Parts: sequence; C-alpha cells; structure tokens
Amino acid sequence: MDVMKESLVFHKKYGGKVGTHLKADIVDKEVLGLAYTPGVAEPCKEIYLDKDKVYDYTWKKNTIAVVSDGTAVLGLGDIGPQAALPVMEGKCNLLKKFGDVDAVPIVLDTKDPEEIISIVKAIAPTFGGINLEDISAPRCVEIERRLINELDIPVFHDDQHGTAIVVAAGIINSLKLVGKDPSTCTAVVSGTGAAGNSIIRMLNKLGIGEIYGFNSRGIIIREDADKYNFLEKELMEITNYSNKRLSLEEAMKEADIFVGVSARDVLNKQMVSSMKEKSIVFALANPIPEISYDDAKEAGAYIVGTGRSDKPNQVNNILAFPGLFRGALDCRASKITEDMKLAAAVGLASLVTDEKLNQEYVIPDAFDERVSQMVAKEVIRVANESKISRI
Amino acid sequence: MDVMKESLVFHKKYGGKVGTHLKADIVDKEVLGLAYTPGVAEPCKEIYLDKDKVYDYTWKKNTIAVVSDGTAVLGLGDIGPQAALPVMEGKCNLLKKFGDVDAVPIVLDTKDPEEIISIVKAIAPTFGGINLEDISAPRCVEIERRLINELDIPVFHDDQHGTAIVVAAGIINSLKLVGKDPSTCTAVVSGTGAAGNSIIRMLNKLGIGEIYGFNSRGIIIREDADKYNFLEKELMEITNYSNKRLSLEEAMKEADIFVGVSARDVLNKQMVSSMKEKSIVFALANPIPEISYDDAKEAGAYIVGTGRSDKPNQVNNILAFPGLFRGALDCRASKITEDMKLAAAVGLASLVTDEKLNQEYVIPDAFDERVSQMVAKEVIRVANESKISRI
Repeated sequence: MDVMKESLVFHKKYGGKVGTHLKADIVDKEVLGLAYTPGVAEPCKEIYLDKDKVYDYTWKKNTIAVVSDGTAVLGLGDIGPQAALPVMEGKCNLLKKFGDVDAVPIVLDTKDPEEIISIVKAIAPTFGGINLEDISAPRCVEIERRLINELDIPVFHDDQHGTAIVVAAGIINSLKLVGKDPSTCTAVVSGTGAAGNSIIRMLNKLGIGEIYGFNSRGIIIREDADKYNFLEKELMEITNYSNKRLSLEEAMKEADIFVGVSARDVLNKQMVSSMKEKSIVFALANPIPEISYDDAKEAGAYIVGTGRSDKPNQVNNILAFPGLFRGALDCRASKITEDMKLAAAVGLASLVTDEKLNQEYVIPDAFDERVSQMVAKEVIRVANESKISRI
Repeated sequence: MDVMKESLVFHKKYGGKVGTHLKADIVDKEVLGLAYTPGVAEPCKEIYLDKDKVYDYTWKKNTIAVVSDGTAVLGLGDIGPQAALPVMEGKCNLLKKFGDVDAVPIVLDTKDPEEIISIVKAIAPTFGGINLEDISAPRCVEIERRLINELDIPVFHDDQHGTAIVVAAGIINSLKLVGKDPSTCTAVVSGTGAAGNSIIRMLNKLGIGEIYGFNSRGIIIREDADKYNFLEKELMEITNYSNKRLSLEEAMKEADIFVGVSARDVLNKQMVSSMKEKSIVFALANPIPEISYDDAKEAGAYIVGTGRSDKPNQVNNILAFPGLFRGALDCRASKITEDMKLAAAVGLASLVTDEKLNQEYVIPDAFDERVSQMVAKEVIRVANESKISRI
C-alpha cells in the first residue's frame, strides 16, 4: 500500500475526519422543547447565576480546541491554516480515540502572537481546554505561557511537552535497564526549539547530571548569550554547566544519552560508537531521523528509540496528550503543570514492568489501553495534591 | 412534565448536547498512519498547493460554526458567553438533525463588534460557513454585513433572517388562502430589531403595498430620521410611504397583516378586531406573544401564527436555517443572498399543497422531512443561476 496515495483517498472519502453528533437525538417535539426553546432557557439562567455551572450543562465539560496558525506543521513548515487543518483533525481524532475527549480543530488566519493570544482568550469560554499545535518556536512558548497565565482552563502546547513526556518515560526505563544513576549521566540534546526546550527541562527534572544543548549554530554556552532568543537564554541556565565549547562530535564522546529533535543525518555511526557504554539514542527528527534505527544499532547503541511505528521504542506523543487532557478535564484542573508532566512520564514508564523491560521495550505501545488511564490518573493525583483541581 | 426542570436533567445527563466523533475509526497502526503521520502530510501538501482542496480533504466541506457573544439570548438578554452556550449547542443539534450539517458552538468573551469581526475572520479557514446567533441589534447587522463582504464563505445571522423567511412563507400561503393580492395589503410590523428589520425587507420583497414599522418609541416615520440608528433609517425608506404619524391602534385599523417580534401584550383583542377582514396575525414575541393565540382567534383574526409548538402555524426558524446551510455547503456558495432567502420562503410555502392549505395550516411542520431538502434545493438553484456556487 502506498500510504501517501491511500491517505488522500482516506481523507476524501468522508470529507475530513471529525464529525459532530447529537448526544441525545431530538426524536420529537418534546425533546426539541428540552434541547432548545423553551427548555434551554433554564440551563442558560442557571449558568448566568453561576458561571461554573457551564461545566454541568454544556459540552465544555469534555471538549477542547486544537488551535494552530499553521506555521510549523509536521516537517512541512509554514504552510498556512487551511493546509494545517488535516493535522488538527487528526489530533482531534486521537484525543477522542485515546482519551475520549471531544475535540475540534480551529485554524487561524493570523500569525501575530498578540492576535493569537487574544483570539484564544476570546473563544476560551466555549472550551474545557486548549491544545496548541504546530505553532513555530520560539513564538509558541511565549503564546503558551501567556495563555496559561491569563486563562482558567488548561493550555498545553503538545509539540513542546508531548514528546518530552514520552522521552522522559523512555529515559527513566532505559536508565533502569542499563543500571545508571541519572546524576552520573551526560545527555546531548540536538534541537533547542519547541520540543528540544521541553526535553531539556524534563531531563533536568529527572536529575541528569549534565546536558549539552545543540542547535544548528552549535552548543548552547553562556558566553554566546547575546546571540540567543529568550528560550535559548533560559536553556543556558540548565545546560553546559562545565561551560565547554564542544562540537557535537566532541560532546557525543561524553554522552550516555542522545536525544535528537533536530534534522536528518545530524549523527553518523562513528559519533554513536564514540558514546559511553550502554548508550541510549533517541533519534526523533521527523520524517527522517538524525540517524536511522539500524545504523544506530550497528554503531553499538544499546537502546534506540525513534519516531517510527515500524521500529521498537516509538516515541509517540499519543502516549501523553490524550491522557493529560482526560485527567485535566476530569478534575477540572486550571492548568497542566510541570509536576503533572513529570508524574505522567513516571506513570508511563511504570507500565513497562520489570519482567518485560528490555532493549526493545522501554516505552509502552500507543495502542496499550492502560496508557491514557495511567496518565489521567497521575494528572488527577498531582492536581489534587497541589490543589489545582476544581471538583 | 415540568419542561424547565426536565431540561436541567437533560442537559446534565450527557454534559451538554454536542459530541464529536471520528468519521473513520482508527482501528490499528495502519489507519493511524493514514489519518495522522506520516500519511496526513499528503492532504496538507495538496491543500498548500491549492487552497480550494481544503473542501476535499477536511471537515470544512460540511462544518459550520455557530458564533455568539451572548448579548441577546432568547428573551434573556445580555447573559454572556458561558450562559449562551446551551442555546448555541441546541442550534448545532438542529443543524445536524434537520440539515445533516456538522456544527460547533463558539461563544466569544468580547462584545466589541470590530473584535468579533476580526475573530470570525481569523477562524474562518476552519469552517464552511458561519451562523451568527443571539448578537444584539443593531450591532448584529453591521457585523453580519461586514463578514459577508469580507469572507468567501456564507455568513448568516439566523435571528434576522430565519424568522423572516418562515414568516414570508406563512404570509404567501395566508394571502393565497384569503384571496388577497400583496400589493393591496397593509402590514403592521411591531419590532424593528434584528428580526423585525429582516421581516420588513422580506414583506417588501413580497410586494406588500404598505408596511408600518413600530418600535417601542412608535411608528417609523421620515421626519424622525435624526433620532434613528442606521437600521431604522434604512427601514424609513421602505415603510410608511404615506408618511402618517399613526399610533399602533390607528395603524391596526388599516392592517390586513400583523407581524409581531416585539414584546408581550402589545396587542389587545380590540385592536385585532379592528383589522381589515380576513386578517392575518403572526404574534411571535418570545416567550410570551403580543397576543395569545386564543385571544387573537376570539377577536376575529382569520389566520393566527405563533412561535409555539402547541398551536397551529408555528413560525419556527428550524424550517429555514438547516436547509439554507445544507444548500449553501452543497454548492459551495460564497454567500446566502436575498434571492436565496426569498426562494427558500417560496419553496417552503409550496410544501403546503392547495388541498391541504387551511387556516390552521399555512406553514409546514418542523418535523416534515421534505422541508430542509426543499430549502436546500432552492438555495442551490438560485446559487447556480446567479453564478455564486463554486462547484
């Protein structure tokens, strides 16, 4: 089967991928009078008197918006709102399929961060949460932070945190398997955009001893601060403690862990071979990784993860976002916090039991039915502990 | 059954009324690869090269947004976006049930017309059409006109035109039944807001000889032009040709037709009795009409229409908007024009055949399955004739 040709047929068959339905069919005039006038006035009045009741009487309880400006779609770049819509619909499908979350795509015909922020704020009363998607870095970070601060519903930019959570789960299990303590490990992260930034923060939270962050201009290092955007400046504080101006090749020699969310073929076999013993390589560039699974294994990597579904250890953000929103909606969390993300990663990792843990199974499978329940459970637990749940 | 209490139970049972679903279930990794990465890149690329293909590969083909700022909800007034959400969900249900149109509610946390216009423009790439709802007059007219001019998808403010189309259908059949020619008739329209404005225009298009427009300050008359908003000024041009400063009581003595979209108890039995022979009274104020059905009949009105489902001749905009959007989406009309609305009214009227036409049946029933098909057919016919269909 040619996936690409098949995909066009698939998308055309039904006219897109997301449909709407009536939760209760309007079978006669009596039901019509409950769902619409005159009966509908009653929930309106109740909500007018107490805004929180919007969660009792409307779809807000279980519905999020998947919002994009189409500026950083897959590996395709800035293709605009219309062309981004199939990805957003796909995301909505995954939220429904894996998290039983109702989700609708909203693509925006503007790239102005202030305008995006004000539009999302304006439509927010409609939704129980906002999933930002495929917005280019570093704008996406600014937009997400502002919205988290200014809205009372969870706002989550999956491109930043979804991959990071799954990577963290994989690293937790990988270190367990190789018997290394995080504090003794050095990690190289290639890519300091939306995903790389969040991965570095998550590795830092896991207690990794040293992290080297690389982008296309080289290693993140304090003395280059004046060349950095606000995001790179922040990373400067939690990477390269030893303040060394290493090349990627040199850094790899010190590395126990490599995580790539950057560009194809950044790594070669020699660089992988030069890593510390029992090395862990997560090469996640999309669609073509930093080094292929087979090449990484041949070069001696002990554990290899990729973004591909046809190889072991797929780092698939499907493992994170449906459960995160499921949990956040169920406890009416006002935010998805760093602690929730970390707990989600730990929970995910725990689904791979000690007996089953091996080099080819450090991350649970996307279709493992326990996944979103586990993530949701962890989100709710942390929300309750930190008192940001609202029911 | 207490409708109001039942309605709260109904709304709480499922958590609102609109759900989303996958048009094709993601049953395994193969389908996942079609609906999401890597396959989803293909429709994205196709749409990037030709924006019109967004209609082939996405939900835009069959999905509209029901947008409100919550400023004029039912008879409740400015209750805000959260409290308006149950009505918008109800509207979405009706679009799906009666027009097979996928629809999602969007309530906005702003009342600024310029901001509403720019938000709707920004989200428009997502949708095949926009139904504006429960936005206060005269702002709603300005917002609708701007959006019709500035967007390439149909924008329709149902509160203005939905009722007007159904009233027009009822008047067409009523005049047929009483054997009067429109040009010889005088109509009194009480209410010059969103609905009243559109009703007056529609009656004018039907060829009614004289129309008197009333609002809470009295009759619309040229010499009061400096007191009027832009909408009332426009009405001044197509009403009160004889330029008389009549009270409602005086005007009713000249009237063959009364249409009320104003306030409870504006009419009394004496005023109805004073109308021309075989008088037609559509008293539509919500929830309590200008005069009750029974009082109007007792006072001698020949044909009485109301907004109530428990009385004959219900003027229910369900008869219009689902078919209008069905037709507009099917032919990818860029607009819903005045000619389409008039054709929809004529089509609706024709569903009441001569044999069945009687005083208690001048308007088809909301659950009559022919209704939305007929309206859609008329919309498509006019769109094709006026070359604003795009397929």
